[in-house]
Amino acid sequence: MTLTNRKEVAKLAGVSEATVSRVLNGIGPMKESTKLKVLDAAKQLNYELNAVASSFARGRSGNLGVVLPHVPKVHLFSTYYFSELLGGIGEAVRQKGYGLLLLFRDPTTVFDYVSLYRTQRVDACIVLGASGIASETESIRRLAEEALPFCVMDQSFNHRGVGSVAADHVRGGYTAVKHLLDQGCKHIGFLNGSPQYSNSSDRRAGYEKALSEAGIAIDESIVYEGNYSRTSGKRAADAVYRDLHRLDGIFVANDRMAIGLIQELRERGCDVPGRLKLVAYDDSDAASLTEPPLTTIKVPFFDMGKLAAEQLLIRITSKEQGEKSPINEKLQTELKVRKSSGHLNAAGGESRTS
Amino acid sequence: MTLTNRKEVAKLAGVSEATVSRVLNGIGPMKESTKLKVLDAAKQLNYELNAVASSFARGRSGNLGVVLPHVPKVHLFSTYYFSELLGGIGEAVRQKGYGLLLLFRDPTTVFDYVSLYRTQRVDACIVLGASGIASETESIRRLAEEALPFCVMDQSFNHRGVGSVAADHVRGGYTAVKHLLDQGCKHIGFLNGSPQYSNSSDRRAGYEKALSEAGIAIDESIVYEGNYSRTSGKRAADAVYRDLHRLDGIFVANDRMAIGLIQELRERGCDVPGRLKLVAYDDSDAASLTEPPLTTIKVPFFDMGKLAAEQLLIRITSKEQGEKSPINEKLQTELKVRKSSGHLNAAGGESRTS
Repeated sequence: MTLTNRKEVAKLAGVSEATVSRVLNGIGPMKESTKLKVLDAAKQLNYELNAVASSFARGRSGNLGVVLPHVPKVHLFSTYYFSELLGGIGEAVRQKGYGLLLLFRDPTTVFDYVSLYRTQRVDACIVLGASGIASETESIRRLAEEALPFCVMDQSFNHRGVGSVAADHVRGGYTAVKHLLDQGCKHIGFLNGSPQYSNSSDRRAGYEKALSEAGIAIDESIVYEGNYSRTSGKRAADAVYRDLHRLDGIFVANDRMAIGLIQELRERGCDVPGRLKLVAYDDSDAASLTEPPLTTIKVPFFDMGKLAAEQLLIRITSKEQGEKSPINEKLQTELKVRKSSGHLNAAGGESRTS
Repeated sequence: MTLTNRKEVAKLAGVSEATVSRVLNGIGPMKESTKLKVLDAAKQLNYELNAVASSFARGRSGNLGVVLPHVPKVHLFSTYYFSELLGGIGEAVRQKGYGLLLLFRDPTTVFDYVSLYRTQRVDACIVLGASGIASETESIRRLAEEALPFCVMDQSFNHRGVGSVAADHVRGGYTAVKHLLDQGCKHIGFLNGSPQYSNSSDRRAGYEKALSEAGIAIDESIVYEGNYSRTSGKRAADAVYRDLHRLDGIFVANDRMAIGLIQELRERGCDVPGRLKLVAYDDSDAASLTEPPLTTIKVPFFDMGKLAAEQLLIRITSKEQGEKSPINEKLQTELKVRKSSGHLNAAGGESRTS
């Protein structure tokens, strides 16, 4: 925004330079006719409006909302899942000069997304950590019915107006279990995360598909449930240790639970991968630091967050009706082979796209 | 907000219930006199205003701003330092029903904080990752001169109007080096982070104090510089390995650099703590996962973020002049003893307040 340009806009619109600034920065009250004169002049002169200036001028906030669940006692920002998603979203809004407005919801009550738009706090929303429980579904349904720009991250809803950016967790789960089968495992347990997330049931579907292709029946007695925390992985060690005589491999639905499980199993003298081969999920920073380093499914959380924000910002700034359809993106995961799955050549952290 | 209460407020103010809602939610334009009537009536009836409703009614945003530096290629949210600070800030704003507006600055140019208040995007600001370079100092100075509510995190400025919440890194550095001395080290190197941060020079002051108390002269040739990244820790391994014949211990200014340094030293056959005792800094999640687990100085980043946000929210909502003085808080760190410092009874992760 150079001075010369602003002067030209002011001249053409027949207003002062200060007025041009006030319109373009959304400062103070302003007659609608003056606002339109300035915007018209800016357009005629191909005056470069940045995203925020242009938002303010149209009565927008310049903010992309990100709504997070409140989970008592959990440092959500310090989990790889949320920090990478937020990082990707942050990168996209930064590039556009937008702000990122973080808001918290109580997942057990219906959250009023619509009023965030009505009060001009946000121009669009990304819903993080949504689950399939009734209150969450109802909040999202109400938002979808207003046809406002929004997107749910990594969770699917049975409503045609709900857009989402997700990873292909069916394929991710399939690849994890296929790798264990390739290592010679025949009795593969599964420690899944909380069932209210569609990405949990997707991993489960992948687990079943790989076993079924190998002609192995699902044995419900070796399917365990945690809640994606390290503590829940530790807790699961009781059952896994009890069942050890009929397990030779295990697929764990995220790295945090895997780390907790391995620690507790080690306490009981059970070595991973010596006694039990393990594949985890996420490829968080910790995956390569822990002993043994984890064979895991890398999920492109940063890219998912970035893509969701970019797609929403396009919808906010574009005038084309066609681009207002719900976002629908699914990204691929990647197998990272390290020591925990007992692969012979695991040292280099071999990787293949799943 | 029950219907009965709103009806009573409307009656006393002599306006419709819809008007009460519009005033309390800050929707649309509104005559100042009407606004005041509603606020007066609400006050008389002890009508419970939540923080955001009351902010909107006073022409505020209901947002606490958090301004982050843009660091190319770094996933800032996934570093323990930023994720914990943000988590603590998030917890405080959530409890007050506020929003957290994340904005990014280019640290090499002067950032216009003041316009964030002027355009009512934020009611107060926390500056994260500020450094002592000229552009940053100038941005903060301008903000301080407007006497707006703000706070700088973990960085000190020589300007009386600048409030801050920090950890006592002089004491933290002192405690780290004192612990190495207690393990019998006499030749203690120091891998510090980037010099533009006051918390780097504070750690340095602590290092010097501990050595000086022990009657050991500072040897500049074993003081190394990284930039707090794991890669910079790996890079420092060249110099540390070269100097190994005259080192028996090293203090590293954060866990990430320590992990990189240990990995590279191991590649060269140098064992920590067998050949070199090490104390790191932060007590991030990774500190207890890596091999060897790190003896480190725990910094209460989450609590620091929470305290800064709470103090600012008090200043925003309070009418007392006295509470408008700059925030000035310094929190204590804690020594966590694990294997990397070669302590004999390190298994349990013994801890002492430093």
